[in-house]
Amino acid sequence: MKALVYDGPRKVSVHDVADPRIERPTDALVRITTTNICGSDLHMYEGRTTVEIGKVLGHENLGEVIEVGDAVVRVKVGDRVCLPFNIACGFCRNCERGETGFCLTTNPGFAGAAYGYAGMGPYSGGQAELLRVPFADFNCLRLPEDAVEKEDDYVMLSDIFPTGWHATRLADLRPGESVVIFGAGPVGLMAAYSAIIQGAKQVMVVDRHPDRLRLAEQIGAIAIDDSKLDPALRVKELTKGCLADKGCECVGWQAHDPDGHEHPNVTMNRLVACVRATGSIGTVGVFVRRDPKSPDPLMKEGRIAFDFGAFFEKGLRVGTGQANVKRYNRELRDLIHHGRAKPSFIVSHRLRLEDAPHAYQHFDAREDGWTKVVLKPAA
Amino acid sequence: MKALVYDGPRKVSVHDVADPRIERPTDALVRITTTNICGSDLHMYEGRTTVEIGKVLGHENLGEVIEVGDAVVRVKVGDRVCLPFNIACGFCRNCERGETGFCLTTNPGFAGAAYGYAGMGPYSGGQAELLRVPFADFNCLRLPEDAVEKEDDYVMLSDIFPTGWHATRLADLRPGESVVIFGAGPVGLMAAYSAIIQGAKQVMVVDRHPDRLRLAEQIGAIAIDDSKLDPALRVKELTKGCLADKGCECVGWQAHDPDGHEHPNVTMNRLVACVRATGSIGTVGVFVRRDPKSPDPLMKEGRIAFDFGAFFEKGLRVGTGQANVKRYNRELRDLIHHGRAKPSFIVSHRLRLEDAPHAYQHFDAREDGWTKVVLKPAA
Amino acid sequence: MKALVYDGPRKVSVHDVADPRIERPTDALVRITTTNICGSDLHMYEGRTTVEIGKVLGHENLGEVIEVGDAVVRVKVGDRVCLPFNIACGFCRNCERGETGFCLTTNPGFAGAAYGYAGMGPYSGGQAELLRVPFADFNCLRLPEDAVEKEDDYVMLSDIFPTGWHATRLADLRPGESVVIFGAGPVGLMAAYSAIIQGAKQVMVVDRHPDRLRLAEQIGAIAIDDSKLDPALRVKELTKGCLADKGCECVGWQAHDPDGHEHPNVTMNRLVACVRATGSIGTVGVFVRRDPKSPDPLMKEGRIAFDFGAFFEKGLRVGTGQANVKRYNRELRDLIHHGRAKPSFIVSHRLRLEDAPHAYQHFDAREDGWTKVVLKPAA
Amino acid sequence: MKALVYDGPRKVSVHDVADPRIERPTDALVRITTTNICGSDLHMYEGRTTVEIGKVLGHENLGEVIEVGDAVVRVKVGDRVCLPFNIACGFCRNCERGETGFCLTTNPGFAGAAYGYAGMGPYSGGQAELLRVPFADFNCLRLPEDAVEKEDDYVMLSDIFPTGWHATRLADLRPGESVVIFGAGPVGLMAAYSAIIQGAKQVMVVDRHPDRLRLAEQIGAIAIDDSKLDPALRVKELTKGCLADKGCECVGWQAHDPDGHEHPNVTMNRLVACVRATGSIGTVGVFVRRDPKSPDPLMKEGRIAFDFGAFFEKGLRVGTGQANVKRYNRELRDLIHHGRAKPSFIVSHRLRLEDAPHAYQHFDAREDGWTKVVLKPAA
Repeated sequence: MKALVYDGPRKVSVHDVADPRIERPTDALVRITTTNICGSDLHMYEGRTTVEIGKVLGHENLGEVIEVGDAVVRVKVGDRVCLPFNIACGFCRNCERGETGFCLTTNPGFAGAAYGYAGMGPYSGGQAELLRVPFADFNCLRLPEDAVEKEDDYVMLSDIFPTGWHATRLADLRPGESVVIFGAGPVGLMAAYSAIIQGAKQVMVVDRHPDRLRLAEQIGAIAIDDSKLDPALRVKELTKGCLADKGCECVGWQAHDPDGHEHPNVTMNRLVACVRATGSIGTVGVFVRRDPKSPDPLMKEGRIAFDFGAFFEKGLRVGTGQANVKRYNRELRDLIHHGRAKPSFIVSHRLRLEDAPHAYQHFDAREDGWTKVVLKPAA
Repeated sequence: MKALVYDGPRKVSVHDVADPRIERPTDALVRITTTNICGSDLHMYEGRTTVEIGKVLGHENLGEVIEVGDAVVRVKVGDRVCLPFNIACGFCRNCERGETGFCLTTNPGFAGAAYGYAGMGPYSGGQAELLRVPFADFNCLRLPEDAVEKEDDYVMLSDIFPTGWHATRLADLRPGESVVIFGAGPVGLMAAYSAIIQGAKQVMVVDRHPDRLRLAEQIGAIAIDDSKLDPALRVKELTKGCLADKGCECVGWQAHDPDGHEHPNVTMNRLVACVRATGSIGTVGVFVRRDPKSPDPLMKEGRIAFDFGAFFEKGLRVGTGQANVKRYNRELRDLIHHGRAKPSFIVSHRLRLEDAPHAYQHFDAREDGWTKVVLKPAA
Repeated sequence: MKALVYDGPRKVSVHDVADPRIERPTDALVRITTTNICGSDLHMYEGRTTVEIGKVLGHENLGEVIEVGDAVVRVKVGDRVCLPFNIACGFCRNCERGETGFCLTTNPGFAGAAYGYAGMGPYSGGQAELLRVPFADFNCLRLPEDAVEKEDDYVMLSDIFPTGWHATRLADLRPGESVVIFGAGPVGLMAAYSAIIQGAKQVMVVDRHPDRLRLAEQIGAIAIDDSKLDPALRVKELTKGCLADKGCECVGWQAHDPDGHEHPNVTMNRLVACVRATGSIGTVGVFVRRDPKSPDPLMKEGRIAFDFGAFFEKGLRVGTGQANVKRYNRELRDLIHHGRAKPSFIVSHRLRLEDAPHAYQHFDAREDGWTKVVLKPAA
Repeated sequence: MKALVYDGPRKVSVHDVADPRIERPTDALVRITTTNICGSDLHMYEGRTTVEIGKVLGHENLGEVIEVGDAVVRVKVGDRVCLPFNIACGFCRNCERGETGFCLTTNPGFAGAAYGYAGMGPYSGGQAELLRVPFADFNCLRLPEDAVEKEDDYVMLSDIFPTGWHATRLADLRPGESVVIFGAGPVGLMAAYSAIIQGAKQVMVVDRHPDRLRLAEQIGAIAIDDSKLDPALRVKELTKGCLADKGCECVGWQAHDPDGHEHPNVTMNRLVACVRATGSIGTVGVFVRRDPKSPDPLMKEGRIAFDFGAFFEKGLRVGTGQANVKRYNRELRDLIHHGRAKPSFIVSHRLRLEDAPHAYQHFDAREDGWTKVVLKPAA
């Protein structure tokens, strides 16, 4: 089959690789019809991770089941399914509690597995024609009769919609509260969209890319351009001095200033400044244990210079980590099905799989208008 | 009246000061019968805070009501009451949510007020014969008929028992879970005691003072001497490789190694290492916004070099801040009354108010056996 | 002053009564500018309660502070305030936990007090020119600068908006879930509106009055006319056999069939049939301890023939009781202020206080179009 | 193999039946070493259910894995495992949320399956030498190295310990609160034991069998003999007029007075009387949709005459349903392993499988001293 393969820093190509097949009786095989490029794919693309050369990338996948193992009882051939980016067993201690992003058995020695991702186990990605799905009855989200019609909405259930939603849940956002979100990339925009769906009174989004800030305003959020304003002052002003009730971090360790210099602690410390005493922060932007290529000496060892004194004095809380997609994907699917959510507003480009290398290049450059790329391997 | 007054770094004295009086119709006046020296008093004693010279210290107070203002309807003269260290109005947005440690009206411009404490408003402390209690109906916890008999238990409701309890709640400890607690001072021991009452399966306490570790074992916890063992390795071993489900920080920014060198980030980073993926940490040890006297360059500005990469990768959470005493003090009072809790096990010294300067000196030196000092101003 | 007085079953009149005044230093005096007639006023109007003749009715009140007692520190003369229907002290065990609908001190011997209501203490109602507000700092919700402009929205914060919201919270409704609401009176409509704000995927409302069902559809809910359809079958159909995730009871013990015969158990049993296994029900429709005038023999003693076998088998939960208005009114006020909620859509009549007797008559007859009456005593 | 078979009302016998075998690749086969008779087995024994003649009973099972299907990856031959009485798939909407007692796929058309139980699917029970366990990786709780030594403790994880625990969780019991429990049978005693482990201040248990009340006192609860006292008055007295914070129903629909007359509503209505305003009740005693043999006319149709007026006025909540065993069994296992819980205190008889018919007879007669029977099929 054809697949998008990592060839080294800033090099990816589409070529033939061996077809995946049913390996265990609990597996399913899915023909991919839509698969996205994720902002976190760029960490690998840029060579900032340990991902091995030859890996097929892609963890935002949707398609049609074409074969199932003997032990699969719920999922049927022909089902349209969306796959959570986390691969989970369903029976370990973490999966049982709904912490499927931290499965203890699918990636032995680590808590959590994913398709086509650095450090997340030996699983191939879905920027390809076919995908093997382990523990299919647990991991496949079956889609309703409008699966094809709303495919670009449903594919967002694989990662960014639940991840944005997770940011608001980690922040314990409640209806009628205000929230400030750092980052208006796909995940930040989904966090803003989630906050609006949940009844937030004010959703403030901090970024500096005009196309992203426009999308934020388009869904009803308040855009704050941090290349022009101090976001903490602006949040204070917008909240009449009360500060934001809650905050979300949707940028991660490669946060940088308008001049491109990386400051891995800037978003967290700004959140401490922007959120009111007793508030909470949800962090879904990725931070890593070590990054020898980071220009920040602390970050080389996975550390940030964190304003913990102010954090404590204000009695703040922070929750972190990759989203447990399965905790949210059923309800979010139903919101899409009933017309109450339409996350495809974020899609800027619909391309063939063959166009993926080109798309990586533009998306990595954060070119204006390259908000979200969906690939159609079956097209 | 007689009171313990702060005269400057490592200088306190007991002498006559003006009697407090009813200033507002919602006030009560309390004759103090027991008041404790708290570990956090030592931050002021050591000159590491902005506390003003002449301040009467003492925020762990219990006594008898001798006068009430015209608007006080529930509390009566003669009531034995324990006073939460936080002074709260009861009607601001934070108080309404039970966040009485972050009252928005009793210390304008800041969230939170307390008796006799740096930066917590103009309120005099209770290491004295008398204390003015604002918003008496809200702030007084009335004690039952065994108030005098169990006075040394009930006085712990003013701060350390609820603060230790708060550490476990911030960590979201649940019955059947394991917890590791850094610090076996009074608050750490109360956190351990709280965890045991709540049905934890394993309570591990890290410290290096033999008297404190003995007390930890005496209440059923597992003592870990970090001057002899790597606590992360020991926790891993005790949990068969699973690590602790939850963690508590009960030390604060003046954490130091066995040689006395301060490392403000050591407890938090060790907790990140000791707690399993998806776990939570409760931090009640005090961290400050700035400490020019800290030997750590980051801490001078209130920062710590925090292992945020590992924290994120494990999907950890942390909650912080001073305890909202009123959230817990009724239920803890009832546990004492019904014989299910006896926090006075921690008391090492019962002294007269006049002995307070002497006690500060020994307690500050962390001399063996000086675990917790209670003062009896009325004796 | 002028006030609406209960003269006996189906008799109310507006006439002069003694002005209220500051009785305790914690009181405030409010000049009422808007006050509503509530569906629960009709229980008294119809003579189905123990309310005493001569009582001034009215518990949905909003106005301007014209005098405060000596102990009031936050609320100022001139403030525009909305008053929760519950009168609460702020310092009893229930108030501390946010259960202000069950205050233990404002109505001794009972848990809960209210203005102008049977069995809820000696407090006069606000269908009058003036109102005494006890514990003013705790009970007054101050309104922002658009207080007058949005007065008909803000007045709904006194009762029906928080009560409808409470129904959804008792039912533990979560975003993406479906909910069925019995009753499209003002509270049922507010429950539906609350569910939509909170991100429900499907909001189904059961009633039979065309004007109410039209309003339900107008806000995005699905109307079910139970005079034409079996609501359980319709809910099953709408949810593809899954049944509703959650349910709300917004009718109460005087529920009746289309022919007017009362069946106090019909709404609860229909909810048991309509809600899926593991679901929850929130009941805010009023049920009483005894009603000698009920045609149902069990209800004379406050009982209903409840389908507890099915309720248990499905593992259902139910939460009940009057709303703790203060738990919600700040956030709901902010949603109104920021333009995210506009509960005044429910208002059908804006009348002078003098018109109140006439309005009671039409509202009690549930005449088409008499959805919600707001009175303007100051007009 | 030998098994205990239901032959009709009050008739059971032990005889040879066909051996179970691996039917699906996700199955395991377990050699039963301990299996209990449960109070709910008596509903079937007495002919009050629809259980079919020839059914092998027994849903409280523990044993050793002797064979696993091809798809089983975690559970190994030789593992000592305890089986939750609920049979759950792990991947349906309810299982995902931890509601494994209401699995949607293992008993099509109904929410919930169990071994050897009326209406809970075609599964054979474990009062036998062998048991087939579906979805073995999800349903087997593996036991640690003291599995054999503490077998009579661990077997309680199959049902009564989690079920008693569930009663306290449905009641939302919190540390420092009081609770009243109706029923001191095995489940009621486990609820009391659970409440004590969780830090309740007062645990009151209502029953009338001296042996059971003695056991309640032995674990630290307060026994209330309702054949001698009005339990509501006694609870009021013990709580100084405050009533119990929370309540648990551990009796079910066959509740009867000391003369043996059934009153299916008596425990729920007494709980409404015993629990304070704003409290919660957890109901785990079984209630059924219909019981034609009930002497109570309402109960024939699955109804009870419920004091809903008082229930509403007090703002009470009730949660019901069979326990989701997997939600609790890991933590409770660990409490046993670490010596913090020893639920085998309840065992009165350890018998061979052959003695089961004799045991049913005595246990059904509630003879003094027949508290809990454990059977040893492998002995």
